[in-house]
Amino acid sequence: MFDDRLSKGRRRGRAALTALVIAGVGAALIAGSAFFPTLVEAKKKELRTEVPPGELDDYYGFFSGGHSGEVRVLGLPSMRLFKRIPVFNLDAGSGWGVTNESKAMMGGLVTGDTHHAHASYKDGTYDGKYLWINDKANNRLARIRLDYMETDTIISIPHAQGVHGIFPQRYPQTDWVILNSEFRTPLHNDGKGDIRDAASYNGVHTVVDAHDMKIVCQVMVPCNLDLAATDYQGKYSFATSYNSEGGATISEMLAKDRDWLVVFDWDAIKDGLKKKDYKVVDGIKMLDGKPGSRYAIYVPVPKNPHGVNVSPDGKYAVCSGKVSPTATVVAIDKLADAFAGKIEPKDTIVAEPEIGLGPLHTTFDGRGNAYTSLFIDSQIVKWNIQKAIDLYKNPKKDDTAVVDRLDISYQVGHTMASMAETKEADGHFLVSLNKISKDRFLNVGPLKPENDQLVDISGDKMRLLMDEPSYIEPHDCIIVRRDIVEPHVKDRADMDEHPLAVHKNAIERDGNKVTVHLTANAPVYGMQEVEVNEGDEVTFIVTNHDEIPDLAHGFCISDYGINFVVGPFQTRSVTFVANKPGLHWIYCTNFCHALHLEMRLRLMVKAKA
Amino acid sequence: MFDDRLSKGRRRGRAALTALVIAGVGAALIAGSAFFPTLVEAKKKELRTEVPPGELDDYYGFFSGGHSGEVRVLGLPSMRLFKRIPVFNLDAGSGWGVTNESKAMMGGLVTGDTHHAHASYKDGTYDGKYLWINDKANNRLARIRLDYMETDTIISIPHAQGVHGIFPQRYPQTDWVILNSEFRTPLHNDGKGDIRDAASYNGVHTVVDAHDMKIVCQVMVPCNLDLAATDYQGKYSFATSYNSEGGATISEMLAKDRDWLVVFDWDAIKDGLKKKDYKVVDGIKMLDGKPGSRYAIYVPVPKNPHGVNVSPDGKYAVCSGKVSPTATVVAIDKLADAFAGKIEPKDTIVAEPEIGLGPLHTTFDGRGNAYTSLFIDSQIVKWNIQKAIDLYKNPKKDDTAVVDRLDISYQVGHTMASMAETKEADGHFLVSLNKISKDRFLNVGPLKPENDQLVDISGDKMRLLMDEPSYIEPHDCIIVRRDIVEPHVKDRADMDEHPLAVHKNAIERDGNKVTVHLTANAPVYGMQEVEVNEGDEVTFIVTNHDEIPDLAHGFCISDYGINFVVGPFQTRSVTFVANKPGLHWIYCTNFCHALHLEMRLRLMVKAKA
Repeated sequence: MFDDRLSKGRRRGRAALTALVIAGVGAALIAGSAFFPTLVEAKKKELRTEVPPGELDDYYGFFSGGHSGEVRVLGLPSMRLFKRIPVFNLDAGSGWGVTNESKAMMGGLVTGDTHHAHASYKDGTYDGKYLWINDKANNRLARIRLDYMETDTIISIPHAQGVHGIFPQRYPQTDWVILNSEFRTPLHNDGKGDIRDAASYNGVHTVVDAHDMKIVCQVMVPCNLDLAATDYQGKYSFATSYNSEGGATISEMLAKDRDWLVVFDWDAIKDGLKKKDYKVVDGIKMLDGKPGSRYAIYVPVPKNPHGVNVSPDGKYAVCSGKVSPTATVVAIDKLADAFAGKIEPKDTIVAEPEIGLGPLHTTFDGRGNAYTSLFIDSQIVKWNIQKAIDLYKNPKKDDTAVVDRLDISYQVGHTMASMAETKEADGHFLVSLNKISKDRFLNVGPLKPENDQLVDISGDKMRLLMDEPSYIEPHDCIIVRRDIVEPHVKDRADMDEHPLAVHKNAIERDGNKVTVHLTANAPVYGMQEVEVNEGDEVTFIVTNHDEIPDLAHGFCISDYGINFVVGPFQTRSVTFVANKPGLHWIYCTNFCHALHLEMRLRLMVKAKA
Repeated sequence: MFDDRLSKGRRRGRAALTALVIAGVGAALIAGSAFFPTLVEAKKKELRTEVPPGELDDYYGFFSGGHSGEVRVLGLPSMRLFKRIPVFNLDAGSGWGVTNESKAMMGGLVTGDTHHAHASYKDGTYDGKYLWINDKANNRLARIRLDYMETDTIISIPHAQGVHGIFPQRYPQTDWVILNSEFRTPLHNDGKGDIRDAASYNGVHTVVDAHDMKIVCQVMVPCNLDLAATDYQGKYSFATSYNSEGGATISEMLAKDRDWLVVFDWDAIKDGLKKKDYKVVDGIKMLDGKPGSRYAIYVPVPKNPHGVNVSPDGKYAVCSGKVSPTATVVAIDKLADAFAGKIEPKDTIVAEPEIGLGPLHTTFDGRGNAYTSLFIDSQIVKWNIQKAIDLYKNPKKDDTAVVDRLDISYQVGHTMASMAETKEADGHFLVSLNKISKDRFLNVGPLKPENDQLVDISGDKMRLLMDEPSYIEPHDCIIVRRDIVEPHVKDRADMDEHPLAVHKNAIERDGNKVTVHLTANAPVYGMQEVEVNEGDEVTFIVTNHDEIPDLAHGFCISDYGINFVVGPFQTRSVTFVANKPGLHWIYCTNFCHALHLEMRLRLMVKAKA
């Protein structure tokens, strides 16, 4: 059906793979033909670290794009950037922020600050369907559908500023996504009354329905909430809090010696919702999670913690110290007793190994080891969780849980190992997401790239494989096995998914509103000229009828600041006022055919009399 | 002075190199410590094709970003992307299009379509100072300063649509940059009169002063002008014309069997300007370059040609056939006779080898060979120029100028070899900029990356080294030796270059206009709170006082859609109306310090009574 005339005779790896999928031979065989026979067998094999021309990577990496507002899709181990998925940013390349479809989602904002991309789960591992990403700048949550690798929903989070840590439910599947607000604000943040009184500020832990992307509820807390995690049983979510002081200045925020890991009890939240134990604030069900409530416990951890990550066996939440040289290990199976008041929150702590300066985030290899990023030391430190627990119980002088250290270049923030946020953590690769590259690349001026370093963690010692520059700034990433994602990814859109898909070229006029229905088939648009009057409100709806994978068309109106791309079977539209009289060539910007340059039409805007 | 406390003890290659520069040991030794002892010696050496962690690339690649509106800086041979330089696009990452400084350049437009990045020359090779880039969508030219790798000027080109081919003067230095208009339009394109009459449309060849970025003049021609080149003597510029028919539809554009390579005579243009042989149209000096004028000759070439490239020895302009399977070689030393009327324009053609289907662009190895991209055949074809000339004079059955062919994946547009657009073409690497990647990378949905393939051309046979995915769409690139660019690149700005650089934190109020002068020093802003009234027009001016290379700060105002980055010693400003009452945390978005998260200030917007 989709005869691929452009690359006839040249299809390689993926074609064979696709054939297998179509033949229904199933996931086992697909995995067999790629890098991973099974997870266990893969561990015995030598790690492949290069991807020669024409071969495919073994993992998808989904990287946040920081204040670039986008999500990036990389391949590992090659570390090549396959795609930028625009989310909160105006992206001139695809026309995200230009088309009517994207503008409807973006709410007039063209900047954002993405930090944490997390994918949808089923039974503790990824199901390859969706990705969520936060906007810390303008306090939103977006969902990306992985079949098209495009943003499909953006929602605003009220009562929250600095929407930072997010995490999807891991078990039994992703029904909820939780979000933290890192900056405390007045609950009614309307600029009335004393907005200077920081003691009156709150943070919120927001629960979003993963399916309809509506807010389920918010749990109000007196402190800020930074990074987030969920457990592997669908019972708890976690949030670090680095400003338990409730300060508004840096010195106030550093006053106390201990801050908190806040744990939220999902059964209690569900019960509270059922029993209507909430206020409705601006239409949102707001539960009170203050200390002493049944919704949250506050585990004291060393000063200004940052990351919290749950080990792949589901047993431990590991909290990284930031200004303390330690990690704090909380035993998840002790939480029920703490919520029940049988033990103190602090009694859930089972280890607190000293690991180095500036611990920020921790990742895992599925073999019992944790890898923590050390910002100040510029290192990844590998340490054994069980050994840390043993030494916490029975301290031994001169003994340590630390197994290995790797110098990185430089100033690592997040770190993430392959599949480490699932029960299928495989201990193959780790990425060290370094904030500063300095002298690691050719000099490109005052604004330099960051440095995402690829590390082999399959052996006893970590081994640095690659320096990969990255644009500001990929805070965090997840690394997902290819066989999980690829079967869901489509080469073309479902044409009729768009209600305005064009099947017949036509121009409609209603007063001064003109709607142009236009097809695109390489190398021609369905019409070669369109005439409108100065001042008309013009809508172009463009459907790409080329069914060939990878055959996208652009639609650019000269001098009108309008350009967007339409992938195979996609429909995109744009509405503008024809306020510039004259001839304005519309042309295809996406090289599509040997006669691509000739793919144009004349927009003639007749001047007002 | 610039003590580098963040990476103490870890500086490697570039530090040593910088020390040499400072010591004044000069270019010879620097080159000696890197890959290139001398150009001649380098050719004897085995080509380095990998760049291990911590080592540096040998070349800068400057790639256009197509309709992403940006320019990209890569390293070769690693093909790693070091930087996106926003030009015509709104870039949420750096705040380009958000700051007052960038908005002043962009003229309200946030999209563009860049095709050809070309650098400034001195004596036929690059001088490492500037880069120019076209905007085909909104008909502009931008200049990038390579010391900061930032856009410093954008100008609009009147009377032109589809501003496509651009090229800087190569000799004796870049004083002019020329631009072509690919789409013919009415000269007075005001929407009055018969704008449908395509016979009345014109193209223009625009000359821009490279120093003050003002238009010197335009040469009007009846045809369209596509790709551009200049010679190595400062005498001529070249433009392909694929629509000599003057058609407005695709079938009209394909009617004739031959189109033109238009050659412009710079001495004649200068003389015409001196003798005032022009009309002034909208303030622009417009010379008439119609056939028969002394400004331009029209060399007939096969139907719908595309690229034109001049060989590094300065002898030939090679024009690629697009819908003809040929390249046309024009001898530049015959042009004077053609302009003088001693020979016909067609007599400047010295070869027309048949090379394959869909020839688009040609590049060179400095050893007498040309490499032409074949879009339809999906190949790079290597052919010998002298042999093509010999065979044109004395055709031999079954003999060919073609030396080698390399299958690429897939549908190549531009191709460029290292230093190939200079007299120092070195024949090391070639990049094949392929429009379609299809199955070469993990599937990422309907919109797939393009594929920039790196090829070793140092031997007799071409050798494919790497597939590198790239975002839509790097039409063209240049590949510049590291030693040419790096000495000019700065780690920090000249602080006082910005007239508003902040040396003292202060808030000024003038009626409802509030100006906040703010310093940023990791991990604090110079003030921890700012109070304004709802409706105030607020300007923040932020200067980064951190002198450490690579220590940038962000400045994000929660929920205001405002974020930008300020590099070391840089100053950036933003003006907005404080129309959202309440507390809005301002925070640093660029991870700068272990206490980066605490780097914030409170913007308090008091509600109107």
